[in-house]
Amino acid sequence: MKAPAFNQEDVREMIRIGTPDRVLRLIGKSHPADIALLFKGLEPNEVRFLFDVLFSARRAAKTLKELPPELLPDILSMIEDEKVARVIARADPDDAVTFSDSLPEERREKVLALVDPDLRASVRHLIGYPEGAVGRIMTTDYLAVLPNITAQGAIDKIRERGELETFFYLYVVDDVGRLIGVVPIRNLVIAPPDRKLREMMIVDPIRADAMMDQEEAARLVSKYELLALPIVDPAGRLAGIITVDDVIDIIDKETTEDMYKMAGLVEEDRVFTPASRSVKLRLPWMFLNLLTALTAASVVHMFEGTIERVVALATFMPVVAGMGGNGLTQTITVIVRAIALGELEFSSARGAVLKEVSVNLVIAMVAGGIICLVAYLWKGNPVLGLVLALAMIINLGLIAGLFGALVPLTLKWLNFDPAIGSAVVGTAFTDVFGFLSFLGLATVFLRYLT
Amino acid sequence: MKAPAFNQEDVREMIRIGTPDRVLRLIGKSHPADIALLFKGLEPNEVRFLFDVLFSARRAAKTLKELPPELLPDILSMIEDEKVARVIARADPDDAVTFSDSLPEERREKVLALVDPDLRASVRHLIGYPEGAVGRIMTTDYLAVLPNITAQGAIDKIRERGELETFFYLYVVDDVGRLIGVVPIRNLVIAPPDRKLREMMIVDPIRADAMMDQEEAARLVSKYELLALPIVDPAGRLAGIITVDDVIDIIDKETTEDMYKMAGLVEEDRVFTPASRSVKLRLPWMFLNLLTALTAASVVHMFEGTIERVVALATFMPVVAGMGGNGLTQTITVIVRAIALGELEFSSARGAVLKEVSVNLVIAMVAGGIICLVAYLWKGNPVLGLVLALAMIINLGLIAGLFGALVPLTLKWLNFDPAIGSAVVGTAFTDVFGFLSFLGLATVFLRYLT
Repeated sequence: MKAPAFNQEDVREMIRIGTPDRVLRLIGKSHPADIALLFKGLEPNEVRFLFDVLFSARRAAKTLKELPPELLPDILSMIEDEKVARVIARADPDDAVTFSDSLPEERREKVLALVDPDLRASVRHLIGYPEGAVGRIMTTDYLAVLPNITAQGAIDKIRERGELETFFYLYVVDDVGRLIGVVPIRNLVIAPPDRKLREMMIVDPIRADAMMDQEEAARLVSKYELLALPIVDPAGRLAGIITVDDVIDIIDKETTEDMYKMAGLVEEDRVFTPASRSVKLRLPWMFLNLLTALTAASVVHMFEGTIERVVALATFMPVVAGMGGNGLTQTITVIVRAIALGELEFSSARGAVLKEVSVNLVIAMVAGGIICLVAYLWKGNPVLGLVLALAMIINLGLIAGLFGALVPLTLKWLNFDPAIGSAVVGTAFTDVFGFLSFLGLATVFLRYLT
Repeated sequence: MKAPAFNQEDVREMIRIGTPDRVLRLIGKSHPADIALLFKGLEPNEVRFLFDVLFSARRAAKTLKELPPELLPDILSMIEDEKVARVIARADPDDAVTFSDSLPEERREKVLALVDPDLRASVRHLIGYPEGAVGRIMTTDYLAVLPNITAQGAIDKIRERGELETFFYLYVVDDVGRLIGVVPIRNLVIAPPDRKLREMMIVDPIRADAMMDQEEAARLVSKYELLALPIVDPAGRLAGIITVDDVIDIIDKETTEDMYKMAGLVEEDRVFTPASRSVKLRLPWMFLNLLTALTAASVVHMFEGTIERVVALATFMPVVAGMGGNGLTQTITVIVRAIALGELEFSSARGAVLKEVSVNLVIAMVAGGIICLVAYLWKGNPVLGLVLALAMIINLGLIAGLFGALVPLTLKWLNFDPAIGSAVVGTAFTDVFGFLSFLGLATVFLRYLT
């Protein structure tokens, strides 16, 4: 819990020179979160050197777990199997899973073959939970006791375990391991020594099934302001816990996912990802985007005859498309965020759709009125203004409002991610409908426009 | 900590009929976070009724604090001054500030005049911190002790205070109140009773200045996995703490802010905000958007002569604009998220800009190649394809990459919000440069296009 006390550049210099003892002296008792920053921008042989230094000081596991998970695979790929296995063996159970998960499948099996069978079985069990399930990230490092133990007996048990870092609660289980209560450890401080846990426990505590979605579990912790959430198997037996710091990680991860999906990005594509990898990750979205843009183009193509006769239409195309796209982005953002924060609990899906459509309609009418006037003053044709205003009401008011609210809600309802590709698919949608309504109406009223 | 145990509709029915005792019986010992949901969609007189029921059971403060902060002003506006004052008097110090902050300034003064002078002074002091500073949301409800006290002495002090809910650490201060150490309360459980805190405290703990930005303070808690962060005044004296559940709220709030700013939305504009208020909040952005869209339109207008001669240009305008806009959104999202998560610690600002520009350039070249071929096959003109490809490289490759990376980083560096209006201002930028490069190049090569 000390503030960072070393100069990154000094330590890097020592790494480059290759003096392990001076590296160790410089980093001293610094927090692993600060030490992890040293891995930034090192050459592979320097990474291996720093790893070895930390490994010899038994600080490798704690430091590696502080790296952004997207950086782990690269770094682990530079370390020998034998050492990775020993880091996994020394790590907390949930970190052991994270490390194993960062290895390519074939290598993971080779590495796990090197750790002791119990740990191997436990890692395999946790990794068996589906991606996104809370069971996959829980830790099995918790204290469970029977209800008849006394406060003093519990304190003795805690003393035996020594490490206290992650214990906030004692979990009380029955004789087949089913969770029946919980005692905040700080309550033990002021309890009479002979008081039985049964008499002081919180009965029937909030818990989550191991298959529950991580985000949902995180929201339980946040909603009820817990420090840790017990995770149970289908029979109600205690299987693990997640702690509040995991919850912050989950919330960060899920928010990144939402923002990234809205922009058509995949999660691994971070600021520190090598450019070549980022290109590979963005290309599929680029193809999709090209396809949707060409769809919009083909709509315009249908009306080339109209544009040829009234070229001013080309001038106003970006206005209809742009306003629609922004209205759509706003609506999707409000809905996606409301889903993530559980705010729909304070509203309703139907109410949300109705509201967004009416807000967009009013805004479209105001914007339509203004643009109608602008077009008239600029181009001297009142019908052009009316066509623009109508197109805006259709595209910004109806399409953007409806699509923006309905699509994320429907995706969520179908258990998909509510934010998938909103920017790419969504803006293509408002482009297509914008051009269709604007150029379509212009074609209908063509004789008043020329 | 119990799971929700009542049926919302049943309770609403009792609220409508107006039977306080049955409402209370139904909600029983349910968690305030569940009770808060009852406020959804009630008529003003029903809100007042529910409030009175909770108030009489001394549960109003705890329940109100569970409401999304954007809902609080509306609900408080329905309650009499006298009662609001009593809720403030009964609330935890940080919640007292939240409630006071939700009142219009004039009413706030009237209400605060009704509470006792000490509390009034304390609320005024905290509300005096600037919006966004961690001092404004800290609680002054913590336990500070001198270093010479023993473990047993500390336990006695805790017992005196009774309420344990929010105490995770004992803060050790010197005789002028300067923070010198911290003792996790769970460590007291296993400490010898006569051990002095001085001997068991963590010396020189991580702390934050009361003026520190809330997000920065939240990231300290998350980075170092703390349960609470002590807040000090400029002289190093302990002034308050924030706890990990505040931190989750801050992170949620800051992320909402980022997503909202990117879409051109203001924070109060939530899914449950009345439509009329949402319209009012979105109109200024709509005006800005209209202005930027008209800027793009005026660029197209400059080239109407060219379009008149090669109307196929109008068809491909949405492709250049759309691809540029998406590349920009992707780049801004990666950078804004990296700033929020502190990932730039693992990269560098210069590296990030270079990387984004090169990624966008490669993608633009691939997309340019494809669109060049498509245009040739579709319109039978190779020069049109080349003009398109070049425009895409300029707009998607250079403009989107540079603007998308530089603008948020510069805004951050100037201490502004990195995400301000990206969607609105940014896409206008790629529209303008897209049309300028595409139609400009087309004008230069006009004789090969007709």
